[in-house]
Amino acid sequence: MPEPAPPDARLAQWRARVEATLAAALPAADTSPQRLHAAMRHAALDGGKRMRPLLVYATGSAFGCDAAALDHAAAAVELIHAYSLVHDDLPAMDDDALRRGKPTVHVAFGEATAILAGDALQALAFELLAQAPLPAPARVAMLQELAVAAGARGMCGGQALDIDATGQWQRDRSEVLPVATMANHRGEIHSDPASALERLHALKTGALLRAAVRLGALAAGADASTRERLDRFADALGLAFQIRDDLLDIEGDSATLGKTAGKDAAQVKATFPALLGIDASRARLQALRAAMEQALTPLGERTEVLAALGRKAIDRDR
Amino acid sequence: MPEPAPPDARLAQWRARVEATLAAALPAADTSPQRLHAAMRHAALDGGKRMRPLLVYATGSAFGCDAAALDHAAAAVELIHAYSLVHDDLPAMDDDALRRGKPTVHVAFGEATAILAGDALQALAFELLAQAPLPAPARVAMLQELAVAAGARGMCGGQALDIDATGQWQRDRSEVLPVATMANHRGEIHSDPASALERLHALKTGALLRAAVRLGALAAGADASTRERLDRFADALGLAFQIRDDLLDIEGDSATLGKTAGKDAAQVKATFPALLGIDASRARLQALRAAMEQALTPLGERTEVLAALGRKAIDRDR
Repeated sequence: MPEPAPPDARLAQWRARVEATLAAALPAADTSPQRLHAAMRHAALDGGKRMRPLLVYATGSAFGCDAAALDHAAAAVELIHAYSLVHDDLPAMDDDALRRGKPTVHVAFGEATAILAGDALQALAFELLAQAPLPAPARVAMLQELAVAAGARGMCGGQALDIDATGQWQRDRSEVLPVATMANHRGEIHSDPASALERLHALKTGALLRAAVRLGALAAGADASTRERLDRFADALGLAFQIRDDLLDIEGDSATLGKTAGKDAAQVKATFPALLGIDASRARLQALRAAMEQALTPLGERTEVLAALGRKAIDRDR
Repeated sequence: MPEPAPPDARLAQWRARVEATLAAALPAADTSPQRLHAAMRHAALDGGKRMRPLLVYATGSAFGCDAAALDHAAAAVELIHAYSLVHDDLPAMDDDALRRGKPTVHVAFGEATAILAGDALQALAFELLAQAPLPAPARVAMLQELAVAAGARGMCGGQALDIDATGQWQRDRSEVLPVATMANHRGEIHSDPASALERLHALKTGALLRAAVRLGALAAGADASTRERLDRFADALGLAFQIRDDLLDIEGDSATLGKTAGKDAAQVKATFPALLGIDASRARLQALRAAMEQALTPLGERTEVLAALGRKAIDRDR
């Protein structure tokens, strides 16, 4: 058996695979309705870290699944992520003009087309996953997993909590925000603001990251105790990913990020640095690094690339 | 074997079934995030003709499937329909304030929540369908069918064509619109405006009506030649449904319709009455009535309720 390629080489191969799968699955920009198709391709191609597809490949491969059997799931989870960004950027939501270094979809194609492109990307995710070259029972389980992660008990629910919370906190813009103010609202929002924020992000970003890991595990037929460890890894990864995002919003610049920096503060959003302080947020990140390692170590060398992805979530600068 | 109940009694039973399935599947309005959940329930419960679920039940039952095995598909296709109405009503789309006699979701809950509620309803459709008490291969085929019908090659594609066409035609508002003007644009839009409009509606409303029939047929395991006849029925039904909608927009009043009448003309939308004339549109409806009958007759008495639904699509007054 040949030595597996080093982590970075495998990640590069998988990135190329998901890019090719997406390019083939998305409707051609020169077929009607062109504007919709162009908007869908704009949203889903040539951008992003592809963290979710890489988690699908890294998990599935670790437990013996061929990359070719993972392509559909990897692309499907990225399509859900891409649609959510299109809708989050809309004027009625975060009202953002820049994403992945490009104009957002509604800026480039208009609001109506952006709403529809997001809707069509979500449908395409399920269409694609239904065609994965895997036994039908595995496909059904994966489809259900993705649907739950995308919906009201997952990503959409988290985004709704975010909107509600931002509205709540914006009513107190005049005060110095946010720790003291949030404490005033304890009863209304959550008994503990940091726990409320964790719950928000466990749904908003965590659910889909966890689903990516679970899709890989389901495709590979990993056993229940393995899946339980992978869940613990994914939950730590999801939280770490968000804390790092919050820190980057403070520390980063728009050019490196490819999106508007400093936007959390401008929108008076609750963030981990705002709630815990910057140093405590960094310390929390290191604790999550240890939790990820602890979850994966008993699963052995085969989780090497997955572990590398976990570290990247913490060390990334965009 | 007991005599089956008469068509109207069976339709009433199925309406109650889909209402109960939706009420149970939708997240409770008193759980967090409440606003999102309330918006989802507002969009999907207590309203509408439930034409798509009834088509699922009528088709599946005709070919031997128990109603209990059809509940998930019936509710799933209605969830896709309900989400599409929420997004179509948004200010960036049709900008409508009234739907099914109630304020639209964005009027009642705000735009951001309306966008998210639509997104979450779509995900819920796939989640629910994945749980249907049917063999996994049938479920996968049904999930794929629904995803294709909902996406860029179906409903979203049709809506995109509608937006593009409305934009095109609105640029000519100063002229007397629409037949003469549309003829001027033949080259840009379609070689024949009536065919272009048929294609638009075959996607926008037809795809989901056809999917409803197909889901019933797939659940019941109907054979290929039966499915081909059912497709012909569904295609005639879809077109008839839209022509009747266009006529109602002219003839109806808002109170009976439960939505704003006269809105097509106000928005300078192409409609069948505008393109063909009212009398020719009515004649077309009668031809489609005959086509529906012709498709179903060879399938025998068991399609009685399905045929009744086809007639209702033409004879309805809202």
